[in-house]
Amino acid sequence: MSDPQAPPRGEFEFVRRLGRLLAPGQPGVRQPRARAGVPFGDDMCVVAPDQPELLWTVDMLMDGVDFDSRVHTWRAIGRKALAVNLSDCAAMAVEPVSALCAVALANTLTMEDALDLLRGAQECGQSFHCPIVGGDTNSWDAPTVVSVSVAARCEAGRTPVRRDGARPGDRIWLTGPVGGSLLGRHMTFEPRIGTALAIARRLAPHALIDISDGLAVDLGRILEASDCGGTISAAALDAAVHPDAVRMADQDGRPARTHALEDGEDFELIVVLAADAPDGECAALGLLPLGQIISDAGLWLEERPGQRTPIPIRGWEHFR
Amino acid sequence: MSDPQAPPRGEFEFVRRLGRLLAPGQPGVRQPRARAGVPFGDDMCVVAPDQPELLWTVDMLMDGVDFDSRVHTWRAIGRKALAVNLSDCAAMAVEPVSALCAVALANTLTMEDALDLLRGAQECGQSFHCPIVGGDTNSWDAPTVVSVSVAARCEAGRTPVRRDGARPGDRIWLTGPVGGSLLGRHMTFEPRIGTALAIARRLAPHALIDISDGLAVDLGRILEASDCGGTISAAALDAAVHPDAVRMADQDGRPARTHALEDGEDFELIVVLAADAPDGECAALGLLPLGQIISDAGLWLEERPGQRTPIPIRGWEHFR
Repeated sequence: MSDPQAPPRGEFEFVRRLGRLLAPGQPGVRQPRARAGVPFGDDMCVVAPDQPELLWTVDMLMDGVDFDSRVHTWRAIGRKALAVNLSDCAAMAVEPVSALCAVALANTLTMEDALDLLRGAQECGQSFHCPIVGGDTNSWDAPTVVSVSVAARCEAGRTPVRRDGARPGDRIWLTGPVGGSLLGRHMTFEPRIGTALAIARRLAPHALIDISDGLAVDLGRILEASDCGGTISAAALDAAVHPDAVRMADQDGRPARTHALEDGEDFELIVVLAADAPDGECAALGLLPLGQIISDAGLWLEERPGQRTPIPIRGWEHFR
Repeated sequence: MSDPQAPPRGEFEFVRRLGRLLAPGQPGVRQPRARAGVPFGDDMCVVAPDQPELLWTVDMLMDGVDFDSRVHTWRAIGRKALAVNLSDCAAMAVEPVSALCAVALANTLTMEDALDLLRGAQECGQSFHCPIVGGDTNSWDAPTVVSVSVAARCEAGRTPVRRDGARPGDRIWLTGPVGGSLLGRHMTFEPRIGTALAIARRLAPHALIDISDGLAVDLGRILEASDCGGTISAAALDAAVHPDAVRMADQDGRPARTHALEDGEDFELIVVLAADAPDGECAALGLLPLGQIISDAGLWLEERPGQRTPIPIRGWEHFR
C-alpha cells in the first residue's frame, strides 16, 4: 500500500503535471492546450503551428529496461529503437519522413557493436522510407541508451488521428492479437503504418493509439482523452489473445486474458471506428473486434450483454 | 600508446564510418552525400529534402559526463540540455521553432526534481521562442540521461551556414573568449543565436560552427570539411583567452592557451568571413579576430608572420 505522506511518483501523474507545466490549459479547462490541433500527450506533436501536417516524436530505450544487450543483438536493438517511433507514426496515421538517432554507448561496446546498432536502426527506417539523417554519439560507464526522434507527415487533405475522438456507440478494434510480447515480439514487431494509413483513407477512424504500455492502459488513454468509457467483450478478448500470451500464462500461472490486457509492447493499434464502419472492410484490413465505447466512465469486461465487471487499468508505468 | 591490434575506437572515426553507413558518397568522393544541401555530420540536418529550410538536431547529456547532479541543480541541468541544442541552431544561423525532451530519470529522483529538470529546459527554450512540445518519460536504476531534439527554420531567402565554405584568405573570428568553461560557464552559457542571425544577415559568413569539443577540434572540423588549413595568431589567441582559462591554468599548471585551444563546451561560435568583411561591423557584433584560412592543410599557431608551429587537434572525444 502506498504511503500517503510519501512524495508523489508515477509516470502518469508526472506526465499530467508536465502537461500543466508545458502546455497549460485555459482556466477551468482540464486538458492542456492543443498545439495546431494535436493535444499535448498524444503519440506525436506538431513541429510548428503554421505547418500542422508535420509531426514528430521521440522514444528513448535503455539497456536492461527496453532491451537486454546480454540477449539481443545490437542490430535487433537498433531496429527496435527505430520501430517504436514508427509505431507512434502508425498511431497518428502519418507517414514517417526521417529520423535522428542519439546514443550513450556503454564503454564496453566495440565500434562494430555500435555500427550494428545504427545498421539495425537504418535498415528498419529505410524499409519505411525513413532514413536516419543525423544524431549524437556519446559513451559512458553505464548501460547503453538509444534515443530516436522521427518526423512524419500527414497525407494531404487529412489530419492526424488523435486519441480524443471516441464517442459512445463507436466500436473498438485491434490490428492484431495481443499479450506475451516479451517472449520475443517486443523486439521484432512490424510497425502498423500500412494498416493505419489504409484505415485513415477508408474508414475515417475516430481515435487511434498504439499499445506500448498495455491494452488496458492504452485503451484507458483513449477513454480518458475522449471523456467516455468502454466495454470489452469477453469472447472478443479471448479471440484476440495472442498464442504468446497463452504460453506465458502456462509459464507464470497468470490468466492469458490478463497478459492480453496488461502486457506492454505489443505495438498493435487500438482503432475506434463509427458503429456503421463496414465489417467487410474491417475484416479485409485484418481488424479484430474488441468492444464498444460507452458514455459511462471506466473500462469494463462484458461476459455477456448487460453483465459488466470493471477491468483494472494496469500496465507498464515508469517512475513508480 | 595505442595498440595497433586493438579494435578501432574513437568518436571521430565512428562518425566517419557512420557517414559512410548512413549517407554513402558517390564512388570516389570522400565526403558522404549531402541532404538538401546540408552535408552529413554538420551541426543540424534537413528533415525532408523538399523542405530544405527546416532543420533539426539532437543532443544527449548524461549525468557524470555532461553534468553532475551532485553539484548542479536539476533546473540548471534542464537548461543546459536545451541550450546545447540552441547552440547548434546558432552554428547553422537558423531560428529554433520547438523542442522534444526525452529523459531516463534515475530512480532516486523525486517528482519535483524531474519537474525542475523540465522547467529549466522549458524556461531556456521559451526565452528563444522554442517551446518543448512533447517528449518521452522513462526511469531506471542508472544515472539520468536527457536527450533534447530541436527543430529550426532558416530565414526566408537564406540557406543554413555550413562548415565547408571556408576558403584560403578568409579570416577566422570568435564570438567570445574561450577556455575554462568547466569552472561554470558550460552550464550557464548563452546560445549565440542572436549574434549568428546578425552575422548571417550582415556578413555573409563562409562557415560557422559552435565550440562544443574544443576550439582546435571544432576549427579542425571546418578545415577538414572545407579542405583547407588555418593559422591562429598567437597574439589574437592570447586576447581571446577567457579569464576562466587563466584561473584553470593557475590551478592545474597547463598553459592558459592550451585551455583556450582544447577545453570543450565554450559554445562560442567560430566564424569564417571573407577577408574584406568590414572590421567595424565585426567589432560591433563583438567578434574577436583569431586567424586566417590557408591552403596548406593543418592548424598552425603563428607566433609572428611566417613563423608557424603545428597545433595538435585535440579536445573532447567520446568512445575512446
